[in-house]
Amino acid sequence: MEPVTVVLAELVERHRADTAGDVARYIPELARADPHAFGLAMVSVQGHAYQAGDAAAAFTIQSVSKPFVYSLALSELGLAEVARRVGFEPSGEPFNAISLEAGTGRPANPLINAGAIVTTALIGGDGEAAFERIRDTLSGFAGRRLTVDEDVYRSEAATGDRNRALAYLTLSQGVLERPAQQACDVYFRQCAIEVTAVDLAVMGATLANGGRNPVTGRRVVDADAAGATLSVMATCGMYDHSGEWMLRVGLPAKSGVGGGVCAVSPGQFGVGVFSPPLDPQGNSVRASAVLRELSAELGLHVLRHTERARSPLQAVRTDHGAHHLELLGDLGFAAAEEIVHCVRRLARDQPRPLVTVDLSHVTAVRPIARRLLADCAAGLRARTTVRFVDPAGLVRRPSTDRSDTPGERAERAE
Amino acid sequence: MEPVTVVLAELVERHRADTAGDVARYIPELARADPHAFGLAMVSVQGHAYQAGDAAAAFTIQSVSKPFVYSLALSELGLAEVARRVGFEPSGEPFNAISLEAGTGRPANPLINAGAIVTTALIGGDGEAAFERIRDTLSGFAGRRLTVDEDVYRSEAATGDRNRALAYLTLSQGVLERPAQQACDVYFRQCAIEVTAVDLAVMGATLANGGRNPVTGRRVVDADAAGATLSVMATCGMYDHSGEWMLRVGLPAKSGVGGGVCAVSPGQFGVGVFSPPLDPQGNSVRASAVLRELSAELGLHVLRHTERARSPLQAVRTDHGAHHLELLGDLGFAAAEEIVHCVRRLARDQPRPLVTVDLSHVTAVRPIARRLLADCAAGLRARTTVRFVDPAGLVRRPSTDRSDTPGERAERAE
Amino acid sequence: MEPVTVVLAELVERHRADTAGDVARYIPELARADPHAFGLAMVSVQGHAYQAGDAAAAFTIQSVSKPFVYSLALSELGLAEVARRVGFEPSGEPFNAISLEAGTGRPANPLINAGAIVTTALIGGDGEAAFERIRDTLSGFAGRRLTVDEDVYRSEAATGDRNRALAYLTLSQGVLERPAQQACDVYFRQCAIEVTAVDLAVMGATLANGGRNPVTGRRVVDADAAGATLSVMATCGMYDHSGEWMLRVGLPAKSGVGGGVCAVSPGQFGVGVFSPPLDPQGNSVRASAVLRELSAELGLHVLRHTERARSPLQAVRTDHGAHHLELLGDLGFAAAEEIVHCVRRLARDQPRPLVTVDLSHVTAVRPIARRLLADCAAGLRARTTVRFVDPAGLVRRPSTDRSDTPGERAERAE
Amino acid sequence: MEPVTVVLAELVERHRADTAGDVARYIPELARADPHAFGLAMVSVQGHAYQAGDAAAAFTIQSVSKPFVYSLALSELGLAEVARRVGFEPSGEPFNAISLEAGTGRPANPLINAGAIVTTALIGGDGEAAFERIRDTLSGFAGRRLTVDEDVYRSEAATGDRNRALAYLTLSQGVLERPAQQACDVYFRQCAIEVTAVDLAVMGATLANGGRNPVTGRRVVDADAAGATLSVMATCGMYDHSGEWMLRVGLPAKSGVGGGVCAVSPGQFGVGVFSPPLDPQGNSVRASAVLRELSAELGLHVLRHTERARSPLQAVRTDHGAHHLELLGDLGFAAAEEIVHCVRRLARDQPRPLVTVDLSHVTAVRPIARRLLADCAAGLRARTTVRFVDPAGLVRRPSTDRSDTPGERAERAE
Repeated sequence: MEPVTVVLAELVERHRADTAGDVARYIPELARADPHAFGLAMVSVQGHAYQAGDAAAAFTIQSVSKPFVYSLALSELGLAEVARRVGFEPSGEPFNAISLEAGTGRPANPLINAGAIVTTALIGGDGEAAFERIRDTLSGFAGRRLTVDEDVYRSEAATGDRNRALAYLTLSQGVLERPAQQACDVYFRQCAIEVTAVDLAVMGATLANGGRNPVTGRRVVDADAAGATLSVMATCGMYDHSGEWMLRVGLPAKSGVGGGVCAVSPGQFGVGVFSPPLDPQGNSVRASAVLRELSAELGLHVLRHTERARSPLQAVRTDHGAHHLELLGDLGFAAAEEIVHCVRRLARDQPRPLVTVDLSHVTAVRPIARRLLADCAAGLRARTTVRFVDPAGLVRRPSTDRSDTPGERAERAE
Repeated sequence: MEPVTVVLAELVERHRADTAGDVARYIPELARADPHAFGLAMVSVQGHAYQAGDAAAAFTIQSVSKPFVYSLALSELGLAEVARRVGFEPSGEPFNAISLEAGTGRPANPLINAGAIVTTALIGGDGEAAFERIRDTLSGFAGRRLTVDEDVYRSEAATGDRNRALAYLTLSQGVLERPAQQACDVYFRQCAIEVTAVDLAVMGATLANGGRNPVTGRRVVDADAAGATLSVMATCGMYDHSGEWMLRVGLPAKSGVGGGVCAVSPGQFGVGVFSPPLDPQGNSVRASAVLRELSAELGLHVLRHTERARSPLQAVRTDHGAHHLELLGDLGFAAAEEIVHCVRRLARDQPRPLVTVDLSHVTAVRPIARRLLADCAAGLRARTTVRFVDPAGLVRRPSTDRSDTPGERAERAE
Repeated sequence: MEPVTVVLAELVERHRADTAGDVARYIPELARADPHAFGLAMVSVQGHAYQAGDAAAAFTIQSVSKPFVYSLALSELGLAEVARRVGFEPSGEPFNAISLEAGTGRPANPLINAGAIVTTALIGGDGEAAFERIRDTLSGFAGRRLTVDEDVYRSEAATGDRNRALAYLTLSQGVLERPAQQACDVYFRQCAIEVTAVDLAVMGATLANGGRNPVTGRRVVDADAAGATLSVMATCGMYDHSGEWMLRVGLPAKSGVGGGVCAVSPGQFGVGVFSPPLDPQGNSVRASAVLRELSAELGLHVLRHTERARSPLQAVRTDHGAHHLELLGDLGFAAAEEIVHCVRRLARDQPRPLVTVDLSHVTAVRPIARRLLADCAAGLRARTTVRFVDPAGLVRRPSTDRSDTPGERAERAE
Repeated sequence: MEPVTVVLAELVERHRADTAGDVARYIPELARADPHAFGLAMVSVQGHAYQAGDAAAAFTIQSVSKPFVYSLALSELGLAEVARRVGFEPSGEPFNAISLEAGTGRPANPLINAGAIVTTALIGGDGEAAFERIRDTLSGFAGRRLTVDEDVYRSEAATGDRNRALAYLTLSQGVLERPAQQACDVYFRQCAIEVTAVDLAVMGATLANGGRNPVTGRRVVDADAAGATLSVMATCGMYDHSGEWMLRVGLPAKSGVGGGVCAVSPGQFGVGVFSPPLDPQGNSVRASAVLRELSAELGLHVLRHTERARSPLQAVRTDHGAHHLELLGDLGFAAAEEIVHCVRRLARDQPRPLVTVDLSHVTAVRPIARRLLADCAAGLRARTTVRFVDPAGLVRRPSTDRSDTPGERAERAE
């Protein structure tokens, strides 16, 4: 079996027996969810998909839709415009809290219900058009045409009075850009869209990939919108459990009462989990356990990549006063710093040396390294000639399209 | 000039003219701070220090001490024990908010005052011993013997009634492990410790480096404590501005009313900034601007490393049914996935091939890649012989000491 | 001029010059109110009406309707049933606060908007029928057919999103007994009913008179409902200013943003004031000043009737061992106590005396006095004969119809 | 048996079997209270005392001390000065809530702990002197020298950290006029003063009597202070149950965790109850039941004196154009209105009549009646001669000493 699949299968196996938690019961359709259902999927930014358990079982997306609709709003209107109606601060309160900011009336963030309704209402067009725009976008994130579970939609609509209250409250504060009933109707339909664990993994992978779906190759939202969405997921995604989530899991994530969770390893992959029993905060019990273990065992915590790499200096050869530096690896701040120190020492020890910096074996140059290497060469110009062997153009790459993938740049060049 | 220094000097130059904000005025000692003072320092996990402006000017550490004392408490007592008295959730409220969790009485997190006082009170010994333990630890983080500004201490002690209230409140909830007045006294002295921007940079670099001071080489706190501290800084470090900070800067950070800010790029470096004028949330205006710009320009946001690296497969050579894969770079999930796909294709296309995977030019293998490569080789054992050329022992490295640096492992081996 | 009218005219004269406060501006119809308009009316429980200034000017009743609709709900459903949906506790918060009780979801009291909407929704029938029932009741309180200001109604309906939010919130809590939109529509129409200061005075007098309109002689609500309504007005009537109102005015009252205030001196009279400029709490500035002065000067504070009356013993005459006690006044606890002490002393000093207690000149016997006098006579039966001369039947009056007026009892007897 | 005693004995008998509630357990001294202990006492403004059950059993006064110390502060500093540090608004929150007013930092009212500590700290002198001043005053209210239960005091002091927190919080807000620890120490001692149900009844009777102890005849606080205290007890006395208390009992009251309750019928009497088992709001279960029943059965609710008195016109005799009005009773607004109507009709029907208004049988003339009668006479001066037969000086009584009792006026005249 394929090794990623092995990892997923083991996790499903290990956590299947955990029967803690209860399925959501506020509408009969959710109460009927199978507490044994348990699916896990992972999709890499290269578009490969892996899965285990009931990863193809359908369930309603519920609150997992919130960050994706937020990214759509950001992509359409820009952060400044969106930020006038909804903030980015964790509220320290449950998902259905009122949490409107004193003074502005903005909901605290787009992942509590009040903020999600305001966000949904930012999508243009009449109710029908707005919903179709949202469905198209979620479908673009998932890479397939998503449909609505009409029973769940009707049931949510029939019982969604607290959400209607939040809609009218934000309307009265001047931050809801649509009639309250219509805003709720679009929101209820958005929450009733059916997905699978694989869909959530593809959706997460699209955010991980800067907004471009790695399976279909299509851009869904722009890279800034994807990045901002990941930030908000990191601080607010797991409701009043978000701080502990960051501490213990360290991946941006979002849960829904349908039992779905989508987590993202930025630049690497998305994960989708489906298991209906929820903890008291409304997060899927098995999904939390699986993601915590996955993060700990495989070192995925975004703030704990503390393993230091080998030196980027594979070899420094000197021949007749000409120095040849063979570099290796993925050059970030630490690697660039080491290279700069080496080059400056060579320049100090000898009058006007020729220094060749060979990046042939380098896999990536991060912006900070690019800046330091270029500044280093420029700064020594009077005393040294620094020449880059850079077949992949890593140092010269313009900084403006930092977020694009090579394929995308090629596509645009056509 | 050295290129990192150039970057810092430019930032100081560009933001010196920004005169927004006001110095803290609640005690005369802080009100006398020079609003023009402005220092910036960066220290890498390799122990190199860079600075610009008034980076050697002394000021009181104030709330910037909180995460470091939290890491000490975690290091001494472990997360479970500490978590019984103080949570990890952003409170959505100002720094001096009461924010005690219903039911447990725990302060929401260790970076609001109530949580910081509870944390400080966890350090063992009588008041004097506890303070010296804290000072030793902060000195260990800074790499030099730190002293207390006695005037500031006396002034804080004279006006700290709200903090005393918080101490008694947590005492009454059973989460303060020390007499309230003594807890406050230690806390006031801790806040009055004098540091410089360079000190804060070294302290941040120590957290970036998994708890080992990269300048002195001495371990200060354990790696788990350092990692947990960074997580709490990421979600709660900038008070009720933490969500926006994550969105716009994306680095764990902590500010103090003395005008200091410490930010951390995990695995890379620490930054210290000193500029007394504060915004209404109590964060240094220039420090916020400088860090925002530094992050954006140099791509430091922890959730936005979305630039894809080159393929790790430098070359795949086949000779008489033996395949030689030359790998490059820093192998994370994406690289490992690509290698695994390649190896499995070779194993599929031909009966019992010999596959040599050459890691000579690889700079790092992240835990997830190590797992996938090892599983891949094991899974194909029946059909293929996979051999690793791994002079640096990257694949075989045991996972238990994941957080240690090579130097540390060497040290321990002695 | 009639002396009550003189008092009112003087008050209007004295406070006319006070131009503090601002008319409500949230809808244009209220913003157009004349800030100089100022009317004052008083109606006694005997049905006499007095007025000064613009007491016949029409304005919308707004929140002054709330206690009257509450009394209707109490009268129809009883306190226990109403109390399941709305509490009686002051909320310490502004009028449009959310203030739902944790656990039950009940609004704190019927005089904040959330509680008023829930109360209005308790009135039976469809929306139209319920509104007509409310209008009939308010008309019954006012003693004339009241009409709706359709412009104000439409404007309130167009801008009432916060109230709709409160309606949906209470609906989601299970305490709203009617569709939210319909409940709001009835509520908006109720608030747009037009009244005058004289109307408010008659309405207040009806509550003062135990629920029977003293002008028309018709019972509007039962005595228990009227009493409970006065209690809630006393603790919650002036929003987050209710405590100070009790301290400084000491009369149950209710204000509205239209500039109207209704105050009640239980058992004595109702007062209506109209003056549109409001203070920041939303209470009419001149109305507050006038009522404060009226209460202070004329000793109307319900908790400050501390002036002790003369002895109820006008004369005690003894003739041949027969004692004749001539009583005077309104017999409450203090008077009854004095009489009982006298009777018992007479009984102690002499074997089997005849004691005649003459109530011919007594104006009232409160329940506590009735009980004490009856018990005294019964208790001494073995040793004394106590005979009551009681032409008005004051002592023998059954306690069950305590709240009825003599006229009412007569009416019922027919 | 004396009839008031009969009433009390019956109440004790009827409620003795009610074993609901739990004694306070936060300190061992209170936990040892006998749950069966049950005492009831009533003291009239004429100084007669009645009791039943364990009315002489001693217990600590606890929060029942709060209104009495508030009245002392008001008496010493005046309302304006006190109101700068503590408000009068019900907080809608439990007794130990923080409830500081935004902006001013004032505790919401003097009957929550924060407000009580601030109030206690207003009493002048050092800690010892202030406490003695408080003890003297409470002793003055009780009419005997009160002592402190030193065990309870020490235990409260040992566990009073939440109160210390409240003290420091108010100190930091600038409303506590004394070092926090000293303020708490005085407060803890005040709460540990021992009283009996009889003491509480005398204390309540003193407030009922305008601040003069009716048993000792000594003035304790001025009448304005007593009146203001009753107002605050009416809206805030029973914590977050105050609204329901007003509705169901309608008497100003204050409870303490020691099981004591003091209730006041203004102008009539005080009641003291002692029964340790408390309901979840911290109010004595049996005391609440007894007072509710007492109020309902004996018509004591301050807002429900709706029983109309007989006409004050005992007789109107006309002889040769001279009219003689014989008045009866306690003349309030309603009676005065009736008299005025009569006099004005006589004046209208006949040129220059002589009208004699005979107040010989009148027991009291309330300020509003005095004003109306005087104005009526003055207004008719041109057309009628109105002469008052007023042997007790009821109409001419100057309004300034409205709150004094006849005995007091006599005393002062000496």
